[in-house]
Amino acid sequence: MEVEYQYGEEMSSPARITLDHGSGGLISQELISNLFLKYLRCPQLKHLEDCALLEGFSGQLAFSTDSYVVDPLFFPGGDIGKLAVHGTINDLAMRGGRPIALSLALIMEEGFELAKLEQLIISVAECSEAAGVAVVTGDTKVVPRGKADGIFINTTGIGRVANRVFISGTNARPGDVVLLSGTLADHGITIMTAQAGLEVGGDLKSDTQPLHRLVAALLDEAEDGIHVLRDPTRGGLATTLCEIARSSAVEIEIDEEHLPIRPAVATACELIGLDPLYLANEGKCIVICDPEVQEQALAGMRGMAEGADAVCIGRVLEGRPGRANLRTRIGGRRLLEPLAGQPLPRIC
Amino acid sequence: MEVEYQYGEEMSSPARITLDHGSGGLISQELISNLFLKYLRCPQLKHLEDCALLEGFSGQLAFSTDSYVVDPLFFPGGDIGKLAVHGTINDLAMRGGRPIALSLALIMEEGFELAKLEQLIISVAECSEAAGVAVVTGDTKVVPRGKADGIFINTTGIGRVANRVFISGTNARPGDVVLLSGTLADHGITIMTAQAGLEVGGDLKSDTQPLHRLVAALLDEAEDGIHVLRDPTRGGLATTLCEIARSSAVEIEIDEEHLPIRPAVATACELIGLDPLYLANEGKCIVICDPEVQEQALAGMRGMAEGADAVCIGRVLEGRPGRANLRTRIGGRRLLEPLAGQPLPRIC
Repeated sequence: MEVEYQYGEEMSSPARITLDHGSGGLISQELISNLFLKYLRCPQLKHLEDCALLEGFSGQLAFSTDSYVVDPLFFPGGDIGKLAVHGTINDLAMRGGRPIALSLALIMEEGFELAKLEQLIISVAECSEAAGVAVVTGDTKVVPRGKADGIFINTTGIGRVANRVFISGTNARPGDVVLLSGTLADHGITIMTAQAGLEVGGDLKSDTQPLHRLVAALLDEAEDGIHVLRDPTRGGLATTLCEIARSSAVEIEIDEEHLPIRPAVATACELIGLDPLYLANEGKCIVICDPEVQEQALAGMRGMAEGADAVCIGRVLEGRPGRANLRTRIGGRRLLEPLAGQPLPRIC
Repeated sequence: MEVEYQYGEEMSSPARITLDHGSGGLISQELISNLFLKYLRCPQLKHLEDCALLEGFSGQLAFSTDSYVVDPLFFPGGDIGKLAVHGTINDLAMRGGRPIALSLALIMEEGFELAKLEQLIISVAECSEAAGVAVVTGDTKVVPRGKADGIFINTTGIGRVANRVFISGTNARPGDVVLLSGTLADHGITIMTAQAGLEVGGDLKSDTQPLHRLVAALLDEAEDGIHVLRDPTRGGLATTLCEIARSSAVEIEIDEEHLPIRPAVATACELIGLDPLYLANEGKCIVICDPEVQEQALAGMRGMAEGADAVCIGRVLEGRPGRANLRTRIGGRRLLEPLAGQPLPRIC
């Protein structure tokens, strides 16, 4: 049987995704076998079942889903594939989960370049291998030209959570300290300047990285004292702290002078009028813990590349439940409101 | 803090999704609280964590993902929400999994009507409740107008699989019989006529329904004898049988005279030139089993509404591995090729 799709063949125009790639027929299977299975080498995937079986479970299970629609698909420091693997690993890790498997579901627009798809699958495969978390099941859909934007990726993950562990945004307690694993706003400012086509100079790149090993180290060091873990993605540090303050019915106070922000990021934020407290991070983690374990927790994070810049940025107060405040450098106090809609560059 | 989104308020134009609904800020949270949590009543969801925790696991785990991009979003017999819940439940069931939780990830286009979204969330909630499989975690993204097609839905599911159960497309054995749980092509022909804007008359509607209870009954009746379960969705019965024949290295033969096809479906297929063997089903299941359990399996299925039309349609032969054949009504034999690309209506 002849198929129209001949991956890798020299062609005058670049090979592209067609609706046939999403039909569930031979051409879909060719794409899966020739491209996905070439890079994603999990034995589970080979059988082309619609569902993976995973063995030897016991205890609590962490379960998290996220769709990735970032524009541009490739950006300094990463791409949508990398983001999709790391983002879901991090969501699992933030509940104390040890990630064990990911699903990968692609929605592609007819006409999407196969070379770009290959680049993204390589990226997914490399990140998943480096993180030790296999893609065990997947799905591919194709929609007509103009009905999507290149490619959207959903990853959903499962992880094991030790039965005694209960880490949650509801667990912050007055007296706790607020730690941050590294610098702020790197991902958000990178994407926003790329979208705007701005060359702001300096070394801007996404901080996308997996945090499950950092979390494992933290739990090893100081499990009983860790109350909340949260990665400040969409909405940034400020919005995430507001959510925790509300969920835990506490007040949270952070110190402007302790917030780690790279000079290039600070300059770019200043230039286009964005507040780094509201920009997304894709490889950072807020840790709210008992002050007794603060030093172990900081030492544990600083001992790893992904937490080298970890610092204490604030504290949890009884105060007024649901509020988050910033103590400014000059000693003032600014109420942090959760982001309402989109963070917009200043217009005038 | 004021939010622009006022769901349910009388407005001159219908309320619509804005980019702010996908920001991760207050307006996203309002959407989640006012709409999603209103209908999806799983206690897990209430805490607005990025990841759900599920307790008391042990044994094998089934894990499956699927994105739904169906056009139109609403069709006779169902909608994209219903399809998304049933489809993933069915993928889990086809490996012998008892579905226990779903994730729900939405990608919406700016401008999508909130009333339609509400209708879909109600549909998801009703189906998930009726099936006894809760949505425990979710994600919402919004892309600019023109960058998606209304709404795309990903559901990913997990299920428990008894340790002794191993049902797989690789398990068909010569001598086995091939059963089908009901009529063919109902979903595929419904969507294709809707897409084409054809009024072909008759009572066409999607067969979308969950099959996990049917599978549970089957396994209760005849567990040891059930070798393969597969729902013939994209690509239809023919493509699915070709896949099983290849995975199991056997030949599969089915009898045209035994294939259950509703008269309205047969007429519509005839009219627009589509082969019902290649059209999608969304609530049917192929069962390949030991002939010794054929009668129990058929009786078990026929005893339930979702399997009332169950029949034996063929058999597994040593023959030529990887082939599937149709024995026609007049005694001929037709090789069933897997679908290559899209099933297209006849053009001339």
